[in-house]
Amino acid sequence: MRVFIVHAHHEAKSFNGAMTQTAQRALLAAGHEVLVSDLYAMGFDPVSDRRNFTTVRDPLLLRQQTEESYASEHNGFVPELQAEMDKLFWAEALILQFPLWWFGLPAILKGWVDRVFAVGRAYGGRRWFDRGVFAGRRAMCSVTVGGLAPMYSYSGINGPMSAILFPINHGILAFTGFTVVEPFVVHGPGRITPAQRSEYLELYRYRVLGLASANVLPGPNTADYDESLVRKAGISPADDQDGSRVPAARRP
Amino acid sequence: MRVFIVHAHHEAKSFNGAMTQTAQRALLAAGHEVLVSDLYAMGFDPVSDRRNFTTVRDPLLLRQQTEESYASEHNGFVPELQAEMDKLFWAEALILQFPLWWFGLPAILKGWVDRVFAVGRAYGGRRWFDRGVFAGRRAMCSVTVGGLAPMYSYSGINGPMSAILFPINHGILAFTGFTVVEPFVVHGPGRITPAQRSEYLELYRYRVLGLASANVLPGPNTADYDESLVRKAGISPADDQDGSRVPAARRP
Repeated sequence: MRVFIVHAHHEAKSFNGAMTQTAQRALLAAGHEVLVSDLYAMGFDPVSDRRNFTTVRDPLLLRQQTEESYASEHNGFVPELQAEMDKLFWAEALILQFPLWWFGLPAILKGWVDRVFAVGRAYGGRRWFDRGVFAGRRAMCSVTVGGLAPMYSYSGINGPMSAILFPINHGILAFTGFTVVEPFVVHGPGRITPAQRSEYLELYRYRVLGLASANVLPGPNTADYDESLVRKAGISPADDQDGSRVPAARRP
Repeated sequence: MRVFIVHAHHEAKSFNGAMTQTAQRALLAAGHEVLVSDLYAMGFDPVSDRRNFTTVRDPLLLRQQTEESYASEHNGFVPELQAEMDKLFWAEALILQFPLWWFGLPAILKGWVDRVFAVGRAYGGRRWFDRGVFAGRRAMCSVTVGGLAPMYSYSGINGPMSAILFPINHGILAFTGFTVVEPFVVHGPGRITPAQRSEYLELYRYRVLGLASANVLPGPNTADYDESLVRKAGISPADDQDGSRVPAARRP
């Protein structure tokens, strides 16, 4: 299997660093191929605008998607983005490795998505979800979280992790066609014992080696939706797994 | 009222640009004070690491929150961040103006949050939600979305906007104590007629002028949670408004 790890932590000695090293070693030892984009080490620029392109479709008005479509047709992405796109298309499995910052991706990783997942390459022309560009490939979030698990439960003050990761799992990964593997979440790596850290890393090693058969989150089936992309009558929601649907009684 | 608009769009002639200009003019004309941080125009750097600080707590291992706490105690934030913090503390109302990119904040705005909402300044010591640093102040997302409303409904393929904005409304704004105003969402500004654009801007003008009395999203009350930050028995969830809770039958 060809695995692409996008790593978004600024400290190599961090638990995130240990996780990516563990994954890389385990996968290579098992005969898989691995590429890592270490965004901080690369000095990756997460700001998306005209800097993404060598081409210009409209010099007067910057419409990002218009420029992305044009660049897709004219091979007009700057080399640093084209290189990331090439890795993404090479990969059969994508791992996003990051600490949860403000209930989301660190900006350096959000900007990697903003810039690399361009119209015409990662989506467009109703290629999404099960008809998405990356259909048949797997993707997984591997996340460290400062707070402990109870506060991220359904009764926790922060809300469930499935709701927090919904925009990423559903809106980025499932949207572009990936089969989304259950996230691997480590709580409070800064507060646990060395033995617990080793145990987490061992669990992570198993998860990564079993990526091809790990549990996945059900995603929507486009055939269940009408032309307006609204679920057809009689079809029940396919992906309540995300925790993002309100109880039926509260639906408007 | 003192209003701080954080604006995250690269094209001044965009609908986002028109919204911020509309808000600024309307508020000033009504006698309010307004500050705008136009992140693209400022060349704001969204990458968070040691570049945030003039101080160093631990030169060998970068733990972001440790360095943030230390910088908070020793006035150790770089001037560009201190300036943003000053505006944030000055404001009685905060507006985040952005296009929804990949179901979230554009990286330049996510990084503004990552860097400006530092431990010791924006939160810390269990100052969160109703006990948060910004309690008594209001905040609102003002968002443009490429896709039309049906696909962002409860039956839509993308999921409801409340779930998509949950990490922002709950995890950033409510978490730090803001009273969160219902988001103002414009769908498909690039596809609507000039008359519809004017109508949206007029509605937005009313919303901004009525910010102090606009509908708010209920947030959690810390008194309802135990020491582990889990909801006490018998207390029903305070903020199902976010759409992020699964139906009761599915709760583990």
